[in-house]
Amino acid sequence: MTNENDPIAKPSLTTKKLYPENQESPIHFLSNKQTPASLFYKRNHFSYPPFNYANFWISVNGSVKKPIAFSIEELLALPSKTVEVVMECAGNKRSLFRPKVFGEQWEKGAMSVGRFKGVALKTLLEKANIDSNSQEVVIEGYDDGYRSDLDNVYAYMRSLPLKKALHPDTLIAYSYNDQPLPFKHGYPIRLIVPGWYAMASVKWVKQITVISASFAGPFQTIDYMYYPNLDNDEDAFPVTTINVNSTIQYPLDRDIVDTGKHTIKGIAWTGDGVIKKVEVSVDGGESWMPASVDNGQEFSLSQWSLTYPFTAKKEYTIMSRATDSNKRTQPESPFWNRKGYGYNAVDQITIKVE
Amino acid sequence: MTNENDPIAKPSLTTKKLYPENQESPIHFLSNKQTPASLFYKRNHFSYPPFNYANFWISVNGSVKKPIAFSIEELLALPSKTVEVVMECAGNKRSLFRPKVFGEQWEKGAMSVGRFKGVALKTLLEKANIDSNSQEVVIEGYDDGYRSDLDNVYAYMRSLPLKKALHPDTLIAYSYNDQPLPFKHGYPIRLIVPGWYAMASVKWVKQITVISASFAGPFQTIDYMYYPNLDNDEDAFPVTTINVNSTIQYPLDRDIVDTGKHTIKGIAWTGDGVIKKVEVSVDGGESWMPASVDNGQEFSLSQWSLTYPFTAKKEYTIMSRATDSNKRTQPESPFWNRKGYGYNAVDQITIKVE
Repeated sequence: MTNENDPIAKPSLTTKKLYPENQESPIHFLSNKQTPASLFYKRNHFSYPPFNYANFWISVNGSVKKPIAFSIEELLALPSKTVEVVMECAGNKRSLFRPKVFGEQWEKGAMSVGRFKGVALKTLLEKANIDSNSQEVVIEGYDDGYRSDLDNVYAYMRSLPLKKALHPDTLIAYSYNDQPLPFKHGYPIRLIVPGWYAMASVKWVKQITVISASFAGPFQTIDYMYYPNLDNDEDAFPVTTINVNSTIQYPLDRDIVDTGKHTIKGIAWTGDGVIKKVEVSVDGGESWMPASVDNGQEFSLSQWSLTYPFTAKKEYTIMSRATDSNKRTQPESPFWNRKGYGYNAVDQITIKVE
Repeated sequence: MTNENDPIAKPSLTTKKLYPENQESPIHFLSNKQTPASLFYKRNHFSYPPFNYANFWISVNGSVKKPIAFSIEELLALPSKTVEVVMECAGNKRSLFRPKVFGEQWEKGAMSVGRFKGVALKTLLEKANIDSNSQEVVIEGYDDGYRSDLDNVYAYMRSLPLKKALHPDTLIAYSYNDQPLPFKHGYPIRLIVPGWYAMASVKWVKQITVISASFAGPFQTIDYMYYPNLDNDEDAFPVTTINVNSTIQYPLDRDIVDTGKHTIKGIAWTGDGVIKKVEVSVDGGESWMPASVDNGQEFSLSQWSLTYPFTAKKEYTIMSRATDSNKRTQPESPFWNRKGYGYNAVDQITIKVE
């Protein structure tokens, strides 16, 4: 039937698009908390940047008293910090919205989790001595290209409010799971903004510019905005913090399983606080049982499980619902928005017991 | 925007299950007709068989006058034949059935196409001199395991009616795209039954048994039967010949594209005859235009395309509909069946032009 020790069956990324390369992590088939680099989801806005590694410097400029540039060697010599972080694309689970929305049809694997090591962005900003009227920090990547809705070439760049930029866990990262950052994930350095959807974590960082105004680049004023209405942009607001969420990893949707005990298992995460509770329903949400949940750290993942005796030969609709330490709970229905960001309705699968 | 020459973006298989290993081919991202071995879809009923390559013999026995065993070397010395063949899982596109059915939720990539080389099964049967009352030929693979619906361990085995077994293109294959068959696809030898869904093409062939009766193994009397009813097995009939079918490869479903000309492209195939016509609709099936179609050989794939000027900024529902030389045409709605085999309704995607 199954042989879970089969040494030669290996999960793969799921290709959603090649140009730019967007590939989803095989989220249902990962049992360890940390996603191996080879199975980390890939999400790009543009082609991969050409890159001259030999001449790499990162500059901090703008509203600062002392513009400064760091070589990789200098970054490596600064005090480091390691944080285990969920990176989740704001469009994760977009394919589940009804009515359907346009854009990359991510299923449940536009997310990964692992240990990023680097220098706190705060450390670099302090060395540049930022002006007292500073408001935001703009991070620009080496990746650029055309947008179909605008005329010019745009670099991928976004700003962070000063408070988030100075958060001690906001990193200029150079390492993933104890190895150099893979090229496709930002080598040699990327920004890591724990707790925010991953559009904030700019890859292939080119420069850091402190500004005393509000940045209005297209990747935070056109894209990565929640548009609650189909036909107009009213009431739009920016995508920032990761919503509380969970995904059932086993069983798989539409699986056929034997009667008897089965362990339902999965993951849960939140961008603000820690996961406090995961509940599971096997009757389509009529009743809920508490799952055992490990002690997820802030910004990381919790793993949960519940063993249930499936005695009746019939269909079961299984759901999971996570709650975080800020009392945010997954809603029954998602917050529909035109560009399909932040899906976090209770997760749901259906199985047949024979 | 996009760079189709980006050298480092590579498609991946899509993992549907690991034990047994079921992985889908990235069908939308393959431009050549022949699927590279590394992207050939994987569909297993059991764990991979352990295998003693050094002692490999294949025997032909049963209702034969001269039971005989062939070594790999002897097979390689026999006259060979090469056929370009579509291998399609009977459950390809199963996830599209409504109401949804249980079982592996294959999307559109449970199929691959390439050149198989081997010895005609007919040649081996002639050497064994089959009895005149022979009716079927049972092919047994080295893969075996438990089934949840039966008590014993079963080897994967299926029979072919004598006529199909003696078809000159039914092969005992040892090569794929000019390389030895990959282990996961049946190394050292597998059966290839052109024109039939791929459950017929037994991998890791162990023995060939000629019988003078009808074989009733579970892989052709329980599985791989069309059950038209949800609640009973009435009117069931076996899955055999591949239905006429097509898949739109570009654009991708729910893509957002610029106004202007875009080339809609895809593939079409049939298990009986050749593809004669592919029609494309951009208005949800109201009107149809003929696509240009290459001259697909019997058992292989046709590639088709149509360039259309998308002038209006709106949503377009694009459909493709193939017709073969036997006048079989893809239906508007699929033939729903409880186990979800043979889906071949017109293919359909929706895009937004901005």
